Amino acid sequence: MQIIRKSFYLSKKVEHKGQVDLVTETDKACEDLIFNHLRMLYPDHKFIGEETSAALGSTDDLTYDPTWIVDPLDGTTNFVHGFPFVCVSIGLTIGKIPTVGVVYNPIMNELFTAVRGKGAFLNGSPIKTSPQNELVKALMVTEVGTKRDKSTLDDTTNRINKLLFKIRSIRMCGSLALNMCGVACGRLDLCYEIGFGGPWDVAAGALILKEAGGFVFDPSGDEFDLMAQRMAGSNGHLKDQFIKALGDAS
Amino acid sequence: MQIIRKSFYLSKKVEHKGQVDLVTETDKACEDLIFNHLRMLYPDHKFIGEETSAALGSTDDLTYDPTWIVDPLDGTTNFVHGFPFVCVSIGLTIGKIPTVGVVYNPIMNELFTAVRGKGAFLNGSPIKTSPQNELVKALMVTEVGTKRDKSTLDDTTNRINKLLFKIRSIRMCGSLALNMCGVACGRLDLCYEIGFGGPWDVAAGALILKEAGGFVFDPSGDEFDLMAQRMAGSNGHLKDQFIKALGDAS
Repeated sequence: MQIIRKSFYLSKKVEHKGQVDLVTETDKACEDLIFNHLRMLYPDHKFIGEETSAALGSTDDLTYDPTWIVDPLDGTTNFVHGFPFVCVSIGLTIGKIPTVGVVYNPIMNELFTAVRGKGAFLNGSPIKTSPQNELVKALMVTEVGTKRDKSTLDDTTNRINKLLFKIRSIRMCGSLALNMCGVACGRLDLCYEIGFGGPWDVAAGALILKEAGGFVFDPSGDEFDLMAQRMAGSNGHLKDQFIKALGDAS
Repeated sequence: MQIIRKSFYLSKKVEHKGQVDLVTETDKACEDLIFNHLRMLYPDHKFIGEETSAALGSTDDLTYDPTWIVDPLDGTTNFVHGFPFVCVSIGLTIGKIPTVGVVYNPIMNELFTAVRGKGAFLNGSPIKTSPQNELVKALMVTEVGTKRDKSTLDDTTNRINKLLFKIRSIRMCGSLALNMCGVACGRLDLCYEIGFGGPWDVAAGALILKEAGGFVFDPSGDEFDLMAQRMAGSNGHLKDQFIKALGDAS
């Protein structure tokens, strides 16, 4: 992912118009590179990508076929600003079930990987979620999203307000895929986000978090739906307490 | 700062009671190490440290004497959770004026330094604040603090709500000293925090940010007071717009 690293450092040096072009170009170049490589290896597989979906104006439905779900550049705002939480996210579903997950932060050189049933890894070493079992001591990561209408923003900050009475503190780092990996490797205990871009943000992270011993679910407590743009995650202990707190905060 | 790095990785392996002890021990060991070294070199200088002040139950007044102001471990919650935004912060004031600033993140190996009038540096290379001059495109970093009474929390989330209508987005990373350095090196555009621990959180960061071309001020727009536990910072362009937005959000 030399492309991302190079563009990341270049991004600070160009004017705003240039930055927008650079992001689009970097996104597109990475997605093409990844898809072309995977298509060569797996010509019969399907592909869902952020850039391709943006070009189509819609996201392909997820089928039971093997499907690669790719975000070539998660954390676009961070990328533009030079804030080092950016990553490539690559997930593979088979029969709609997340089966391979790879999240790579080329700036901090952290590679998170998981294969279904085989555990999760950071740069090759096994990772597991935190042992924290008290909600009041939990560190949660979330985002305020990109929508700026009053109703969405009021909901977002009211939820944060109510949750802050029940947990230790909040982090916002600007990349959902890396947030999920942060919970997977035990640096954070909880994560949630509603209204993010699409399945490419969570396809890899959801598997990595589960394989590290955590839980991924709908913030309502329902089963996680990869296509629903709603996710919550926890370590192996806090799922029920977190669902209750999210419910009380809604 | 081998002590912090070792303890950081050890922290994940001990139980909660052990973690609290480990933080206190690491804090104390670092502060002693730094103070003893500086006292040997500058026997006539004064010292203000987080741990020493905690032991005394109060913070010494800042005098016109050369005074080293030290936070041996900024980002304690991150430290306990293994989240990599932790640092040592060392500032020197002479005649109450910040004159030397050093902030070191031993986990990410980033060393921010500044001497008054000589510019700011990251790992030896000059840094400067971002060129962003539109508030609506600015990335702001802040924290929700540690107080959990209703009045403080409501003020905090109301302010965030109102600011979100005027800026691009928010980050929360859990270390004020590193937040200020993030603005200094242009990864972030704005920062503010009210009610933090003491002058040790800002003594070094304030100089580094100023020397990188940014501004440090009271969130009201008044002059920055190192002892007031109130700070706002911006790149070289957004100070006035940010003060107005903070005023509107209060």
